[in-house]
Amino acid sequence: MSTDHVVTGDGPEPVVTDTDPIAASNPIPTPAATPPDVVRCAYLDLVVTDLAASRAFYVDVLGLVVTEEDDEAIYLRSFEEFIHHNLVLRKGPVAAAAAFSYRVRTPEDLDRAVAFYSELGCRVERRPEGFAKGIGDSVRVEDPLGFPYEFFHEVEHVERLAWRYDLQTPGCLVRLDHFNQVTPDVPRAVKYMEDLGFRVTEDIQDQAGTTYAAWMRRKPTVHDTAMTGGDGPRLHHIAFSTHEKHNIIAICDKLGALRMSDVIERGPGRHGVSNAFYLYLRDPDGHRVEIYTQDYWTGDPDNPVVTWDVHDNQRRDWWGNPVVPSWYTEASLVLDLDGNPQPVVSRTDDSEMEVTIGADGFSYTRKGDEAKGFKLGHTL
Amino acid sequence: MSTDHVVTGDGPEPVVTDTDPIAASNPIPTPAATPPDVVRCAYLDLVVTDLAASRAFYVDVLGLVVTEEDDEAIYLRSFEEFIHHNLVLRKGPVAAAAAFSYRVRTPEDLDRAVAFYSELGCRVERRPEGFAKGIGDSVRVEDPLGFPYEFFHEVEHVERLAWRYDLQTPGCLVRLDHFNQVTPDVPRAVKYMEDLGFRVTEDIQDQAGTTYAAWMRRKPTVHDTAMTGGDGPRLHHIAFSTHEKHNIIAICDKLGALRMSDVIERGPGRHGVSNAFYLYLRDPDGHRVEIYTQDYWTGDPDNPVVTWDVHDNQRRDWWGNPVVPSWYTEASLVLDLDGNPQPVVSRTDDSEMEVTIGADGFSYTRKGDEAKGFKLGHTL
Amino acid sequence: MSTDHVVTGDGPEPVVTDTDPIAASNPIPTPAATPPDVVRCAYLDLVVTDLAASRAFYVDVLGLVVTEEDDEAIYLRSFEEFIHHNLVLRKGPVAAAAAFSYRVRTPEDLDRAVAFYSELGCRVERRPEGFAKGIGDSVRVEDPLGFPYEFFHEVEHVERLAWRYDLQTPGCLVRLDHFNQVTPDVPRAVKYMEDLGFRVTEDIQDQAGTTYAAWMRRKPTVHDTAMTGGDGPRLHHIAFSTHEKHNIIAICDKLGALRMSDVIERGPGRHGVSNAFYLYLRDPDGHRVEIYTQDYWTGDPDNPVVTWDVHDNQRRDWWGNPVVPSWYTEASLVLDLDGNPQPVVSRTDDSEMEVTIGADGFSYTRKGDEAKGFKLGHTL
Amino acid sequence: MSTDHVVTGDGPEPVVTDTDPIAASNPIPTPAATPPDVVRCAYLDLVVTDLAASRAFYVDVLGLVVTEEDDEAIYLRSFEEFIHHNLVLRKGPVAAAAAFSYRVRTPEDLDRAVAFYSELGCRVERRPEGFAKGIGDSVRVEDPLGFPYEFFHEVEHVERLAWRYDLQTPGCLVRLDHFNQVTPDVPRAVKYMEDLGFRVTEDIQDQAGTTYAAWMRRKPTVHDTAMTGGDGPRLHHIAFSTHEKHNIIAICDKLGALRMSDVIERGPGRHGVSNAFYLYLRDPDGHRVEIYTQDYWTGDPDNPVVTWDVHDNQRRDWWGNPVVPSWYTEASLVLDLDGNPQPVVSRTDDSEMEVTIGADGFSYTRKGDEAKGFKLGHTL
Repeated sequence: MSTDHVVTGDGPEPVVTDTDPIAASNPIPTPAATPPDVVRCAYLDLVVTDLAASRAFYVDVLGLVVTEEDDEAIYLRSFEEFIHHNLVLRKGPVAAAAAFSYRVRTPEDLDRAVAFYSELGCRVERRPEGFAKGIGDSVRVEDPLGFPYEFFHEVEHVERLAWRYDLQTPGCLVRLDHFNQVTPDVPRAVKYMEDLGFRVTEDIQDQAGTTYAAWMRRKPTVHDTAMTGGDGPRLHHIAFSTHEKHNIIAICDKLGALRMSDVIERGPGRHGVSNAFYLYLRDPDGHRVEIYTQDYWTGDPDNPVVTWDVHDNQRRDWWGNPVVPSWYTEASLVLDLDGNPQPVVSRTDDSEMEVTIGADGFSYTRKGDEAKGFKLGHTL
Repeated sequence: MSTDHVVTGDGPEPVVTDTDPIAASNPIPTPAATPPDVVRCAYLDLVVTDLAASRAFYVDVLGLVVTEEDDEAIYLRSFEEFIHHNLVLRKGPVAAAAAFSYRVRTPEDLDRAVAFYSELGCRVERRPEGFAKGIGDSVRVEDPLGFPYEFFHEVEHVERLAWRYDLQTPGCLVRLDHFNQVTPDVPRAVKYMEDLGFRVTEDIQDQAGTTYAAWMRRKPTVHDTAMTGGDGPRLHHIAFSTHEKHNIIAICDKLGALRMSDVIERGPGRHGVSNAFYLYLRDPDGHRVEIYTQDYWTGDPDNPVVTWDVHDNQRRDWWGNPVVPSWYTEASLVLDLDGNPQPVVSRTDDSEMEVTIGADGFSYTRKGDEAKGFKLGHTL
Repeated sequence: MSTDHVVTGDGPEPVVTDTDPIAASNPIPTPAATPPDVVRCAYLDLVVTDLAASRAFYVDVLGLVVTEEDDEAIYLRSFEEFIHHNLVLRKGPVAAAAAFSYRVRTPEDLDRAVAFYSELGCRVERRPEGFAKGIGDSVRVEDPLGFPYEFFHEVEHVERLAWRYDLQTPGCLVRLDHFNQVTPDVPRAVKYMEDLGFRVTEDIQDQAGTTYAAWMRRKPTVHDTAMTGGDGPRLHHIAFSTHEKHNIIAICDKLGALRMSDVIERGPGRHGVSNAFYLYLRDPDGHRVEIYTQDYWTGDPDNPVVTWDVHDNQRRDWWGNPVVPSWYTEASLVLDLDGNPQPVVSRTDDSEMEVTIGADGFSYTRKGDEAKGFKLGHTL
Repeated sequence: MSTDHVVTGDGPEPVVTDTDPIAASNPIPTPAATPPDVVRCAYLDLVVTDLAASRAFYVDVLGLVVTEEDDEAIYLRSFEEFIHHNLVLRKGPVAAAAAFSYRVRTPEDLDRAVAFYSELGCRVERRPEGFAKGIGDSVRVEDPLGFPYEFFHEVEHVERLAWRYDLQTPGCLVRLDHFNQVTPDVPRAVKYMEDLGFRVTEDIQDQAGTTYAAWMRRKPTVHDTAMTGGDGPRLHHIAFSTHEKHNIIAICDKLGALRMSDVIERGPGRHGVSNAFYLYLRDPDGHRVEIYTQDYWTGDPDNPVVTWDVHDNQRRDWWGNPVVPSWYTEASLVLDLDGNPQPVVSRTDDSEMEVTIGADGFSYTRKGDEAKGFKLGHTL
């Protein structure tokens, strides 16, 4: 009944497909077990090397709310959150992500998580008292891609500060929106995530069928996490959302006033993928934080998938502004369940940076333009 | 583990409870049948008496997108919608709501809808070809409260105009957000809606336990529909959302420029309930339309319910601006499946208008204030 | 060469005229002396009865910057100001305005002020050391309308906090925009102000030629002060500006969070006159404060004057929302140079409130409507 | 009495001085004649090579209002303008600026303009019927820097569309804000402009006293025009203002939707100089257009001058985002009074691009940082 397409100005890009053509080399098997019912991405457990410096960044500059803290860790939440935290800053020797944590619908979903990952042969650890303050019974796994994933249901409720306009700042962060992970083989990662119950909402491909990145969701936004092709497993970024675009601009303005503009890595800008307004920052350890607002509803079962051409210069920035190389190449280590950094495996598929802004790469503003279409003044 | 509470400034209002104390007179029985899995409110089928006048309002003024139209009906959608329509304007002799339509997750959910309502003794009609253009197999019912509810899964996909900034206006409507229904007995209605799988997110009560209104959701926002206590069954309003607050202000400014400011019934303002920024308009038939933005995530299974005191002057407008009487008393008729208006039954519980702005009513800004606390200049 | 007119939607209102028909009963003579060259309204000297309560309102809630303070007075400025202050809160027994202070272009303009007002027979007092901290040589007068006007040039410079986004709040006040004065005979007041070098930008009249209010400027905005017809001399309000509309909404939201929504007297809304977005608050003494943004350039010598019909329901609120009676009737006393309240003289011309929302008054949304055109739900 | 300084975060940059140290080689003599009293920059007379293409850009994309047009020229204005036009697009063989036109206070100021420039030995041409439609008696000169300057007072009034929200678009341009000119010797240019009655509000210098750019105003904003050091005389850009920042973002979003993102040259961003939010576009001929909002009041006679260090990486973009080389090197030709392009003279002083992003240049985020302080990922 449907012919899905998004016409954007003069051409057929982005193309929308209802099927996602996933390559199938070295696939992760689909478990027979029912996956846990994931509600949403809930918090990131992040190791930082200087707790005071990180507190200054996340609390004093970005204004996240301290739920509680001690000498070892700080538990932070956004203004509309009612669970204990969305981010744990944990003091440690190596800056890295210790856990990507998802909330599941029922306590029984933890049993499902154990069964699902056990069947995949993953290392699984369950702690009834939780791995982090405020969180109850939890399961942590080293997933098939090498990422430390956590699942929990029980959690301490705290005040939802949505109505506390007396406390809110011009750049107020209201929700945790998503994670973004770097992994060498995107289709392989997507297939596993689909088995876990996630759905692809958008992706970046080329004519030859290479997939460069994919966005996947449980909650009905563009994503709870994305898989970005690159050397991995690594954490690309964590993203918090604001209500409006001016809130993101206010964060930039404040960073300028604090003479910290060098923490702005990329943006602000409008994404092509997701249609959201964005900003990327780097924290004192180099962990990347996105500030994000205004993507769209994806909760229908037949939500159209949007596929972008990797050479479309508006896919990552709708205004065609260049992506800085660091954004493509730098990311944070992730830890195994013993707290040791996971080894990083190189991507063997084509690199998005090389095919677009590398010596032999190209991008276009309008498909079919004779000139390669680099943006005016674009020399990156 | 949790102690839910929202502290707002100086006092314990709004109170948050995990249980909802529902009165139980003349209850609607809980069917044994599994209810259909409702994804979201999807469209309203609205009878208007002058199609051209309604088109001028919804298309020329509000900027909704015409998917298709003929002499009898106009099919409209918002800019981020990918299904055929969110609103049908249908020419008819009596201005009324012909159907509140919900999308369900699977085709099989239509069978569940039939079983669920048949068990309740409701009139049920199923049309494989649908009741409206663009919609496939559909079930319409006269529900236990007298409302015409529709359920469908199959739907024609159309272009999602999220990226079409070349077409968007300053007051761009991006999503259908919710319905709002008037019914005499709110707890009775809530109980039935919970059986249908909805969850209460917020409500308005008094110390004596009277419930004046309740907000209920399937999608993880504050509501897909609300039950407002009053003479019913009637349609209180349909609500579309914008991205930002300035979009709503732009609609007001445009109405002023068109010398149509008298269609602004109430607002703009900030709701206490839902925390959203709002505006209420009246269309050429008097049907009420809300423009709405920025409520909060409610998708967790233990999302805290917020209960507001009916005497709290900030519950319906966070800034304490008065609610005009017409907003309480006027609403649209609804039709039965033969297209005849349903009789309206009077509310016997206390009236929110009477207990707050009536001769013996009162509202406070701060609980415990000696003075009744009418806002400066407030004479309504 | 020009035919000035503003067409707004469906009719010729507001009418724009290049001449202002001023009534001429009991006129204030035009001095032979050259008036001082006024640059802009600069600060208000305001007597408050509870300095701590006023500080809480202006500093803690509204976020004005304290330049300096002692037990008797607090000197406040807005974020883009570089002179010592825009508002003095001065402890005193009677809440009142002690001086409306204007900055003049040169030191010599003080001599001109002395000559100008001496010729008018006004009481004049000059203090080389100034009347307020941070201000040098100043002239204060009891002007022909009974208002305490001040003129100064010398002033202490302080840090302009325009770039200090680290200190700015969501409702950041960036500039003093204007004063608004209540006086019985508006044309008489306008004639005097024109002699002082001010120009009318907009006014409200009726068909019979009665003028209800007039807006006058030196700086090229809609006004430095306005003359509002009513019992006077009284201070109607002082207005600070924000950058954007959401800043004004943020102030409302914060007042709600603090359970202080009852200080919101009127708005937020869009003015017809001035086209600005506005909000009116009342401070702890009842002094009225407007928050204001986005009027237009008026600096050309032939800037068209916009005249509004007093019965046009969009003149004071472009969205047709009602003006609360207190806004028309309440205002602050002003002091003479000895610090005693000036007696208040009644207006004898028609009252804007009476002719629009009084028992025999009327307002229209569209000129020529048969119905009186009260806005839906409008019962004021 | 004053010590002017702006402290921004951690250091003394930008430095503010009350005196401007102007180099004095080859100075333009100060005329004995009184200069004309310039009210504001009023319009740009711009030669374009393809009138239809330019119309598509300025009218269809940017939404400027057509006052009138014929086969040779299009007269455009912004939404809050009441004079005939702010921009003339005139068909011609060479893309160039034909006149920078300023409005003067009185008809007599034209006589002053003639005398002022005649004394400077400039070519002067006066046309009582004007050089452009809608404009009366006008004086055009080839000024001492080689720029075609125009002065006029008489002008046709047209409808000010400030209240016409029914016509306004999401990226609505409301005012002409300023010109920006490229000239080799900035101090020489500033000295001449000061003789013409302009005042410096901000400038960029280095420790050695080289001035790289200066902003000058008649109206009380940061500028009516700026002098940018470089090969000249050339037009750097013309700037229109919007009300809010989201209006500028809407223009970017629309350009993306139209697959015209390659016309975005730089931004959006926050300027250090002027504190305004900005965007630079290039029209079909390569003429540069800035969209600009929210600078500050400069109308006091002792308005503090802000001097920025050329090595301060936040001077041109408060967020430290890089300036693209084309922005420094490319500009439009200007015409003499016969319509022939003026020869371009090279700048001999240091180049801002070379000293900041050139091979031997450097920029810092925080003065005194050991590292050169290039922004993360900054390779320009």
